[in-house]
Amino acid sequence: MNVRATETDFQAWMGAVQSRMEAALARLLPAGQIAPARLHEAMRYATLEGGKRVRPLLAFAAGEVSGASVERLEIAAAAVEMIHAYSLVHDDLPCMDDDVLRRGKPTVHVEYDQPTALLVGDALQSLAFQLIAENRLAEDPSVQLEMIRTLAAAAGSRGMAGGQQLDLESTGKTLALPELEMMHVHKTGALIRAAVLLGAFCGKPLSAEARTRLDKYAKTIGLAFQVVDDVLDHEASTATLGKTAGKDARQGKVTYVSLIGINRAKALAQELREKAHTALEGLEGARRLGELADFIVLRKF
Amino acid sequence: MNVRATETDFQAWMGAVQSRMEAALARLLPAGQIAPARLHEAMRYATLEGGKRVRPLLAFAAGEVSGASVERLEIAAAAVEMIHAYSLVHDDLPCMDDDVLRRGKPTVHVEYDQPTALLVGDALQSLAFQLIAENRLAEDPSVQLEMIRTLAAAAGSRGMAGGQQLDLESTGKTLALPELEMMHVHKTGALIRAAVLLGAFCGKPLSAEARTRLDKYAKTIGLAFQVVDDVLDHEASTATLGKTAGKDARQGKVTYVSLIGINRAKALAQELREKAHTALEGLEGARRLGELADFIVLRKF
Repeated sequence: MNVRATETDFQAWMGAVQSRMEAALARLLPAGQIAPARLHEAMRYATLEGGKRVRPLLAFAAGEVSGASVERLEIAAAAVEMIHAYSLVHDDLPCMDDDVLRRGKPTVHVEYDQPTALLVGDALQSLAFQLIAENRLAEDPSVQLEMIRTLAAAAGSRGMAGGQQLDLESTGKTLALPELEMMHVHKTGALIRAAVLLGAFCGKPLSAEARTRLDKYAKTIGLAFQVVDDVLDHEASTATLGKTAGKDARQGKVTYVSLIGINRAKALAQELREKAHTALEGLEGARRLGELADFIVLRKF
Repeated sequence: MNVRATETDFQAWMGAVQSRMEAALARLLPAGQIAPARLHEAMRYATLEGGKRVRPLLAFAAGEVSGASVERLEIAAAAVEMIHAYSLVHDDLPCMDDDVLRRGKPTVHVEYDQPTALLVGDALQSLAFQLIAENRLAEDPSVQLEMIRTLAAAAGSRGMAGGQQLDLESTGKTLALPELEMMHVHKTGALIRAAVLLGAFCGKPLSAEARTRLDKYAKTIGLAFQVVDDVLDHEASTATLGKTAGKDARQGKVTYVSLIGINRAKALAQELREKAHTALEGLEGARRLGELADFIVLRKF
C-alpha cells in the first residue's frame, strides 16, 4: 500500500469511529425530553457534535491491540469523552478561563447559564462512572473496577483536576520546563493515558510487556498532544481552531512555545512522535495507535 | 433498658461512628502536603470537621442489617460523604446559592477562591468513585460495581444534580406539593438512599424483602430529612444552624413550610418517621436505623 492509500484508509477508519461515537454518545446521554429537560439538553449540547474525539480514537486504536469489541469500546470511550467534555465545560466558566467560544459554538454557560453549566459538568462526571459500572465491558468484573479506578485517578486531584489547579497557580509565574511538563502530565496526559488503557482493558488480558508499551506510548502521546496544542495556539487563527486563539499568551500562561520557542517546540513534538512509535515496536495490532501518533503531531487544527 | 439508657446508648454509638468517620476521611483524603497542595488542603477543609455525618450514620446503621464490617463501611460511607461534601461546595458557589457560611466556617470559595472550590468539588467526586473501585468492599466484585452504579445514579442528572437543577428552576415559581417532593426526592433523597444501600451492600447479600424494606425506609427518611430541614430553616437562628437561616424564604424558594404551613409540615415529619419505622418491621439488625429515623425527625439543628 502506498502512503496515500494508507492515509486514505486511516481517514476512513477515523471517520467511522467518529460517526460511531457520535451515535453512541447520543444514545448513552439522557434524552433531552427527560426531566430535568434543560439539564439533559445542556449535557447533550456540551458533548455532541464536538471535537476530533481524540480520546475515543485512542481507546478504539488500543482496543485493536487486545481484540476488544466495538460495542464495549464505545461505552468505555464514551465514559472517557464525558469526563473530557465535563472538564471543558467547567474550564470555560467565568471563574476559570472565561471562554465564550468552544468548537465554534457558544460555551455552555453562554448558551444556557452558569448554574446549569456547573451541573452539566457534575452530572457528566457521574454518568461516566455509571456507564462503566452498569455495562459489561470485561469478562471479569474486577477488570471493570480497575477501569473505574484508572479513570477516577486520571480525572481527580492527582490527575486532570490537579493539573487544572497547577495551571491556575502557574498563571503569571515563570515555570521551568519540568514544572510545565508536570502540569500537562496531569492536566491532559492523565486522561489520554486513561483512554488508551480503558480501550485495551475492554479486550483480552494484556501481557505485562504489552501493558508497559501501551503505557509508555500513552504518556508520550499525551505530552505530544499538549506541545502541538501550544504550537497551534501560537500559530493558528480563531477561525481554524474554533476557539479563541493566542489566548494562552494573553493570559500570561507559560506554554512550550513561550518557554523554549516555536522551533524547539516543533522539534520536541517530532521527537515525541518518534518516541511513541518506538514504544509500539513489536506490539501486535498497534497500527492505528501509530497512525494516531502521526495524526496528533501532524494535525493543523 | 429504659428510654434514657437507650438514648445514651444511641448517643454513644453515634459519637463512635462520627469519630471513626473523621479519622477515615482524614486518612482517605490526600494529605495537605501532597502536590497540588492547595487543592488537597481545600478538599480536606471542605470535608473534615463537618456536619452530623447523617449519610455515614445511615450507612453504618444499614450495615448492621447485613453484618458488614466497620472497615468496609467506613470506605463506603466516606465515598457517599465525599459526594455530599462536593455538592455543598458547588452549591455554595456565587453562581448557585452564593453562601459565605457553612457549618459555622467560611465556605470553600471564600476561604480559598472560586476556581479552587470548583476543582475541589470535581476532585471529591472522582475520589468517591475511586475509593469504591480500589478497596475490597464485597466478596463479589459485581457487588462493588453495583455500589458504583447506585452512587453514580444517585449523584447524577437523574439524582442529586438533577434535583439541584429542579431547585434552580423552581426559584420564584409556585410549585405544587408533588413537584416539591419530586425536587427533594432527587436533591437530597437519592444520596440518602444510596447511603443506606451502600452500607447494606458491604455485608452479606440481602433477601429481596430486606432490600425492599431498606429501600422504603431510605426513601421515607430522605423525605423526612428535607421536611425537617425546611421546618428548622423556618424556625432556627443562624447561630444554631451554622449556616444562614431563613434563606429559603428570602430567596423566594418554595419549602414544605411555605406550601403547607409550619404545623402541617411538622405533622408530615412525624408521619414519615412512623412510616420509616413501619418499613423496618421484622427486619433484623435494624435497631440503629429506627433510632436514626427518630434522630433525624427530632433533631433541633
